[in-house]
Amino acid sequence: MPERKVAVIAREVEPRLGTNYPAQYAENCKTREKRALGDQFALTQFGVNLTTLPPGCWSSLRHWHSNEDEFIHVLEGEITLIDDDGEHLLRPGMCAGFRAGIQNGHHLVNRSDRTAHYLEVGTRMANEDVVYSDIDMKASKRAGGAYVSSRKDGTPY
Amino acid sequence: MPERKVAVIAREVEPRLGTNYPAQYAENCKTREKRALGDQFALTQFGVNLTTLPPGCWSSLRHWHSNEDEFIHVLEGEITLIDDDGEHLLRPGMCAGFRAGIQNGHHLVNRSDRTAHYLEVGTRMANEDVVYSDIDMKASKRAGGAYVSSRKDGTPY
Repeated sequence: MPERKVAVIAREVEPRLGTNYPAQYAENCKTREKRALGDQFALTQFGVNLTTLPPGCWSSLRHWHSNEDEFIHVLEGEITLIDDDGEHLLRPGMCAGFRAGIQNGHHLVNRSDRTAHYLEVGTRMANEDVVYSDIDMKASKRAGGAYVSSRKDGTPY
Repeated sequence: MPERKVAVIAREVEPRLGTNYPAQYAENCKTREKRALGDQFALTQFGVNLTTLPPGCWSSLRHWHSNEDEFIHVLEGEITLIDDDGEHLLRPGMCAGFRAGIQNGHHLVNRSDRTAHYLEVGTRMANEDVVYSDIDMKASKRAGGAYVSSRKDGTPY
């Protein structure tokens, strides 16, 4: 079992930068920072990240999850949630949730001139397929939790 | 499926007040407010609450979960986390996690003179037993998700 801490200051956790998207899709998310908070306490059933989007940055490509619920809560800054129904401006103290299997792709874009921070929670299912709404891509979870991206017909990039 | 919203202002969600503890144990948590945020989006795999502790209020009796991971993130105010190892002061931007099955009972107490607010996340397992560290009580989840409290030998109150 990894070391478990009692409590941490979320912003002091070491971040990971950008995504593991294929290079042609990675540009809009390259300044995204994620701090894995749940992992600090060796939680396994869900992940919690403090996610930071500098101005212009996207949270992800627009997508929906087959098996895993997602939830976000804005801590600081303004974020635009974009889904099939349009655009929704989220301010601090607002939250949104994305139920597993609902085929309404979403992502978050920081269109403001100020860095935004939010908490995100996602279940950790053994198996997962993420479907990207606007491009020919899906991502499937492999044993160990890593995602592998491919075209929707399974052809590798 | 319940109505799903796109986004909500967390503090505008209708709260529930206090606990369902037996009367002799309910006093210290009676001013606690929980706003069920994940339910606003019909999430089922984990619960997310905005929890409010006025001065003097406890989050719960000191307990640990057998099957469900827990996580908290302080939004506003100061909260004292109490566990087997002592007391830990949590300020805004700090978080803590409680891995399922770790038998280190914890709770949060607002010892300040200002109301505190935090987000809490907990997995929703079909079966769960919560064990209370300082009193002769456990709580078991029944079908439908409601908890029933009893003495640790199963005798009802």
